[in-house]
Amino acid sequence: MLKIQGIFPPIVTPFVDQAVSYAHLAENIKKWNHYQLSGYVLLGSNGENVMLKESEALQSIETAVKYIPADKQIIIGAGNESTRSTIEFIKQAHRIGGDAALVISSHYYKDQMKGKVLEAYFTEVAEQSPLPVILYNVPKFIGLEIPLDTVAKLSEHANIIGMKDSSGNMTYFQSIIGFNLKKFQLLTGTANTLMLSLVAGAIGGVLALANIAPQICLDIFHSVRNDRLDKARKLQLSVIRLNQLTTAVYGIGGLKYALDQIGMYGGKPRQPLILPDDQGKSEIKKELKALKLI
Amino acid sequence: MLKIQGIFPPIVTPFVDQAVSYAHLAENIKKWNHYQLSGYVLLGSNGENVMLKESEALQSIETAVKYIPADKQIIIGAGNESTRSTIEFIKQAHRIGGDAALVISSHYYKDQMKGKVLEAYFTEVAEQSPLPVILYNVPKFIGLEIPLDTVAKLSEHANIIGMKDSSGNMTYFQSIIGFNLKKFQLLTGTANTLMLSLVAGAIGGVLALANIAPQICLDIFHSVRNDRLDKARKLQLSVIRLNQLTTAVYGIGGLKYALDQIGMYGGKPRQPLILPDDQGKSEIKKELKALKLI
Amino acid sequence: MLKIQGIFPPIVTPFVDQAVSYAHLAENIKKWNHYQLSGYVLLGSNGENVMLKESEALQSIETAVKYIPADKQIIIGAGNESTRSTIEFIKQAHRIGGDAALVISSHYYKDQMKGKVLEAYFTEVAEQSPLPVILYNVPKFIGLEIPLDTVAKLSEHANIIGMKDSSGNMTYFQSIIGFNLKKFQLLTGTANTLMLSLVAGAIGGVLALANIAPQICLDIFHSVRNDRLDKARKLQLSVIRLNQLTTAVYGIGGLKYALDQIGMYGGKPRQPLILPDDQGKSEIKKELKALKLI
Amino acid sequence: MLKIQGIFPPIVTPFVDQAVSYAHLAENIKKWNHYQLSGYVLLGSNGENVMLKESEALQSIETAVKYIPADKQIIIGAGNESTRSTIEFIKQAHRIGGDAALVISSHYYKDQMKGKVLEAYFTEVAEQSPLPVILYNVPKFIGLEIPLDTVAKLSEHANIIGMKDSSGNMTYFQSIIGFNLKKFQLLTGTANTLMLSLVAGAIGGVLALANIAPQICLDIFHSVRNDRLDKARKLQLSVIRLNQLTTAVYGIGGLKYALDQIGMYGGKPRQPLILPDDQGKSEIKKELKALKLI
Repeated sequence: MLKIQGIFPPIVTPFVDQAVSYAHLAENIKKWNHYQLSGYVLLGSNGENVMLKESEALQSIETAVKYIPADKQIIIGAGNESTRSTIEFIKQAHRIGGDAALVISSHYYKDQMKGKVLEAYFTEVAEQSPLPVILYNVPKFIGLEIPLDTVAKLSEHANIIGMKDSSGNMTYFQSIIGFNLKKFQLLTGTANTLMLSLVAGAIGGVLALANIAPQICLDIFHSVRNDRLDKARKLQLSVIRLNQLTTAVYGIGGLKYALDQIGMYGGKPRQPLILPDDQGKSEIKKELKALKLI
Repeated sequence: MLKIQGIFPPIVTPFVDQAVSYAHLAENIKKWNHYQLSGYVLLGSNGENVMLKESEALQSIETAVKYIPADKQIIIGAGNESTRSTIEFIKQAHRIGGDAALVISSHYYKDQMKGKVLEAYFTEVAEQSPLPVILYNVPKFIGLEIPLDTVAKLSEHANIIGMKDSSGNMTYFQSIIGFNLKKFQLLTGTANTLMLSLVAGAIGGVLALANIAPQICLDIFHSVRNDRLDKARKLQLSVIRLNQLTTAVYGIGGLKYALDQIGMYGGKPRQPLILPDDQGKSEIKKELKALKLI
Repeated sequence: MLKIQGIFPPIVTPFVDQAVSYAHLAENIKKWNHYQLSGYVLLGSNGENVMLKESEALQSIETAVKYIPADKQIIIGAGNESTRSTIEFIKQAHRIGGDAALVISSHYYKDQMKGKVLEAYFTEVAEQSPLPVILYNVPKFIGLEIPLDTVAKLSEHANIIGMKDSSGNMTYFQSIIGFNLKKFQLLTGTANTLMLSLVAGAIGGVLALANIAPQICLDIFHSVRNDRLDKARKLQLSVIRLNQLTTAVYGIGGLKYALDQIGMYGGKPRQPLILPDDQGKSEIKKELKALKLI
Repeated sequence: MLKIQGIFPPIVTPFVDQAVSYAHLAENIKKWNHYQLSGYVLLGSNGENVMLKESEALQSIETAVKYIPADKQIIIGAGNESTRSTIEFIKQAHRIGGDAALVISSHYYKDQMKGKVLEAYFTEVAEQSPLPVILYNVPKFIGLEIPLDTVAKLSEHANIIGMKDSSGNMTYFQSIIGFNLKKFQLLTGTANTLMLSLVAGAIGGVLALANIAPQICLDIFHSVRNDRLDKARKLQLSVIRLNQLTTAVYGIGGLKYALDQIGMYGGKPRQPLILPDDQGKSEIKKELKALKLI
């Protein structure tokens, strides 16, 4: 079974004049490669997956695969509304490369997505996916949480190897850890709870913040692993405001603005998403400075 | 300016073995054509728009255009996450046919979709759309409401001719009516509030229920228009339970099951959506019988 | 059975230097008595019921009873968290006067207030209440809705004569009307849906707005009753903004400010509630002027 | 300034035939006194505070004060809807005894309780309270969260010594810790996040679970303090299900049922609250057994 562990940035998709810039994608990856990141998540929420055409998504994978060294894992964001379309996309992605698929719930018809329906959805996807499947729980974007007992059932499937939980709900998170499932690998999906999730038993994190502050994320990870909780706590508390500004408050526009400040390519998100206003920019710069990232 | 009025079913997309059945789509349309419906909404939420590939969506329009008589209006559901993709789709649809585009908000990044961002989104789409634009407000699916003052501003755009509001929130609905905008045409998006919306000043409705009970919807419409409120009320109250069962409770699976019962083609929705369980089926049948639809 | 019908203001409780001013209460009532209001709701949400000590609440009833003419009905807001305390309060109120009790759900422990629990609560209260009981559904204040099937069951109780629904949810409202219960009398609890609720089958309204614009509320009521829908619609749409300002937006502070403007006594609400800021005051005045109330 | 630290059970209020049983209250306290608990919270949410008459509340304090040894702190739940009533209650409680007041937000008019209003409310209470004030943030019961910047401002007040946060939102919680306020003492309000809150920097917890499993709560506390995270994690994960059953799922009825099982007095909660059904009882017993509490 694929073993995952450590810090994975869900990397942004760069645009120039609203078109995907594969060149900037490559440049960014080369810079991230200098860090001891365990790998990358392509086409996640922070990769503006929903903004891309399928052809752009596939070409993004192609580019990334070329520039990501073999010792780093590639997790590919997947998950369309229909079961068949999700499976088809994973198959196409798999032909290009990648180590696992991070699959979001079908969610437009959220009232219909009861536990049984989600269980059937993920099971069918897992059965047919040539890549191991990681469940993706992200209520803030889709207004839907995978019920705990559905997670419990799905965790027994041979091709479902873990879950990325971006809910920030630590009762939910610890309940899953508490299932004590040998093989099920739990990743936190928000840097706000990186330290706490690791303490609770997570094996790592998929963190927007790892786009702009990979070393701090790695330091938190290693501090917890090495029982240096005081150091972890200090680092953890220091990044919450920056993380909020570049996710909940200003979203991907905030994250891309921060990338531009630290010498990587951020650029503009795809419309209708926008960059932060002047106040947002100045708040982000202030936090980047406080963390010595600029 | 395109004048709209009356009842429009947001028609379902039939599948056979999970593949779109254009033949059944044609058959259904021929049957609906017997009613005095003002037209059709293609590729709406009830048309499983999000479940379709672009090629399937376009071919559905092609098929529908062929079977819908010229005196009936065709409103095409549109709206992807990115501005450019929404515009591109409308342009393609327009080449095939159609009278207006029903455009949903970009919504995956819902916290970022403030009034100003939605205003920019819909304005840009309206600028470039070759079809007149109808705003589509549907919080239950997308977790996002177009703010009232944004609606007010957008209603002044020459190419934004109206709005379909599926919120069921009559304070919101009446507030828009109250703007007293000469040209802005307001449609209700749920049969639950058909009578009341018409009383408040709506010009019609886009109603899932019109798939399975077009005549009752038409009767409510005409009863209100002809000041026969007692008749309207009786009809309105009689359909609420069936409407709930085929929308909120069992969703499209419920709607398709009902279609099969009344001699049209429903079939199965695309997975992961499912048909109702036995209890749901029996509840739906009970309501169909009570309304003499079977 | 007590027959109710028409417009009832849920009257505000006047304070001078934060103490209840029974004198101002009497003065206000004398002014409201000039209108063809069907009666009054004492100690409702707009009466700052939760801000009063029991002794103040009882003395408010005493005062009101003295100044309200016999041909007007008195509905008394009741409902504490415990069943026994609710019953005890109703008994005390009944000794002073009043025609019916308007009983809110126990709600602090909202997750525990399932249908069965609410059913037991209201049933027990109804059994022991010397006054006929009107259910009070007000999700915006208590985060809890009485489930439809619970309403259906409770509506059969001999001492439960109706319901005030302030949810604004017209699907819910019409569903209750649709139960077609001969004796169950449904009142809307918000002026925003006065016309529509009457059209749907309500027998009247308990309206914050009737504190400051009783005649307009009465005119809407009579216009619907006399099948003058055009007039009703015009009036209805004209008051929505004022109603929003004096309920949802600025709350009781807004309502009291408006009372002061029209020559009645508003004064300050009890702390921590506050009067609107300058912008709010000017918005309210603008709407009062537009409606020729000042 | 009052220094708080450690584990505090928010103790239940025992009833016999729906009347407060001060005798059983005393008996329970004598049993809890055997544990190294730092003190008690009287009249919290789990004490059915909202179900009590003021006279019962005061007599409960009197009883408790008599049986609680001097080396244990007494925190008294307070907070009515009006500022004056909250202050008056704290003054009365103070005359009887107690070390601090745990003050909940005024919340019935939740839409009006903006940051500025809550700031004024808590400031006024703190100014006039003879007891040091601990803020109480509990969105699940009151549908309202004290905004972060309001907490920051209030934390500077000399008579506001800390906060009990029952939100379970660790981003919120860590943000407050991150304010790095020397004097502001943060308590978690749910056993689900005891370990994690302590790791984040909390000084203790007010935990429903400490009613029925005080030693496990203490063991988690000391394990974290002594850097024995593995032990803490094992204990923490072991209690989540029991804690859920006796709070979120079955509420105080569940907690009281558990008390009865472990040889303390639980009895029935005050109506309309109820004991768990048979399935709930058996689930709770199963968890109590697994934890060797019975």
